Amino acid sequence: MNNFADNLVEAIKKKGSPICVGLDPMLDKIPGSIINIATEKHGPTITAAAEAIVNFNKGLIDSFADLVPVVKPQLAYYEMLGSYGIWAFEETCKYAQEQGLLVIADAKRGDIGSTAEAYAKAFLGEVNILGTKQPMFNADAVTVNPYMGYDSVEPFIKVAKKYGKGVFVLVKTSNVTSGDFQDRVVDESGLKIHEFAGHFVESWGANDIGKYGYSPVCAVVGATFKSELKKLREIMPNSFFLVPGYGAQGGTADDVKAAFDLDGLGALVNSSRAINYA
Amino acid sequence: MNNFADNLVEAIKKKGSPICVGLDPMLDKIPGSIINIATEKHGPTITAAAEAIVNFNKGLIDSFADLVPVVKPQLAYYEMLGSYGIWAFEETCKYAQEQGLLVIADAKRGDIGSTAEAYAKAFLGEVNILGTKQPMFNADAVTVNPYMGYDSVEPFIKVAKKYGKGVFVLVKTSNVTSGDFQDRVVDESGLKIHEFAGHFVESWGANDIGKYGYSPVCAVVGATFKSELKKLREIMPNSFFLVPGYGAQGGTADDVKAAFDLDGLGALVNSSRAINYA
Repeated sequence: MNNFADNLVEAIKKKGSPICVGLDPMLDKIPGSIINIATEKHGPTITAAAEAIVNFNKGLIDSFADLVPVVKPQLAYYEMLGSYGIWAFEETCKYAQEQGLLVIADAKRGDIGSTAEAYAKAFLGEVNILGTKQPMFNADAVTVNPYMGYDSVEPFIKVAKKYGKGVFVLVKTSNVTSGDFQDRVVDESGLKIHEFAGHFVESWGANDIGKYGYSPVCAVVGATFKSELKKLREIMPNSFFLVPGYGAQGGTADDVKAAFDLDGLGALVNSSRAINYA
Repeated sequence: MNNFADNLVEAIKKKGSPICVGLDPMLDKIPGSIINIATEKHGPTITAAAEAIVNFNKGLIDSFADLVPVVKPQLAYYEMLGSYGIWAFEETCKYAQEQGLLVIADAKRGDIGSTAEAYAKAFLGEVNILGTKQPMFNADAVTVNPYMGYDSVEPFIKVAKKYGKGVFVLVKTSNVTSGDFQDRVVDESGLKIHEFAGHFVESWGANDIGKYGYSPVCAVVGATFKSELKKLREIMPNSFFLVPGYGAQGGTADDVKAAFDLDGLGALVNSSRAINYA
């Protein structure tokens, strides 16, 4: 099975761009023409809403599939429509992959071991449905929250390695209050919690480094904290970074420079709002 | 709008028990008779699997609805079946509430502000579907992960207060490695991260304490760490505790005693595996 980080590097080289486009569909921002096609068929129903989201995403994907290697659907915007929304998420993942894109499911999951395993199977692996194993969301990678410790992340790493997929662990997030917990300085080591998380991530991926120097255990590091980003790059030389917060949240090109290695690899810069509703 | 903690206290008093039953359906543990009814109708399909889960949950709920005030479906076991599973989750929530039970959606969500708001609306509030506001999952409370700080939790608290719902913040979880991050001692205060989280939770609920002394901002505190539980009760006198880890994970009745106040209130003890597959 391929190493996810190798797949990622090759996709970035092929497209010549380290951009990840967030797919965060908001019904009130989808063009009226797309909504109308769906409501003419189904009325102003949740079925129409889900169909409009899928069609909106397909149009977006068509517009950038030649230029961009990765998309990142954010689960919250699909869960808003309940089971219909999850159908829209499934259709979106499938279509993106058919167009040659890698899919990072931005789910920020994490739970006790047996439960984390269920999430990992749903997002990255296969599920046993009454005797037949089948992939469910079949994303290429998923974001996870490490607050519950190693046994909440390990099942994702295991399933990811088995299926050639990746895991992006939240290390230092881009939001204003990310420091509430992530910037606290830990007594015994003098490290901040996010640095501490960085060391975990680096060690969790250490046994599975691919041919470009990166492991399938990746990190989420916000564009909005430049000096933290630089330090985290030193702590995690072998982890690919997903860098949110560029653009709408205030991160600039100069802010994200430190995320990349000398070959211009090692990071994916995410842009959601700027591209979705341009 | 009622305070969620008041609703919870009244439900506990009515049933005379502070038990929360986890609904964590695993297909391979559901009785063959229930599976057969579904596969005779739909074949060995994902439709049959989802229907079997709903029927299994309904049977369970019927068996304890007179004895127990709260159920806690764990989202991972529904997401395993994709959109079909989320349908099963929706049906389960609805049925449990029809039988007079409160529903805590064990989703452990948390994200940057705008995204957290989407999750909060999906789980606790209402979603605008092409001009009509409607509840989606309509759970009575949801579990959230605080690693991203206050702005990742605040939208849940806001929506919860607006709709008389509750939020259970992960403070000290029951799993073996919960200490990886949660037990780190913070330099400036000498508090452990989970104690630090406890102070946050207490302050987040301080302006909305109900008639029984509890706020709708509640805490998840594992049964498996007795002395931590005792200390967290002191830090959060006004927060209701959801206490997982009792039974299958090793917590005993003596371990959870400290979670309760002198009236036997203030905590819900969760049991999943022991009851689901008894």
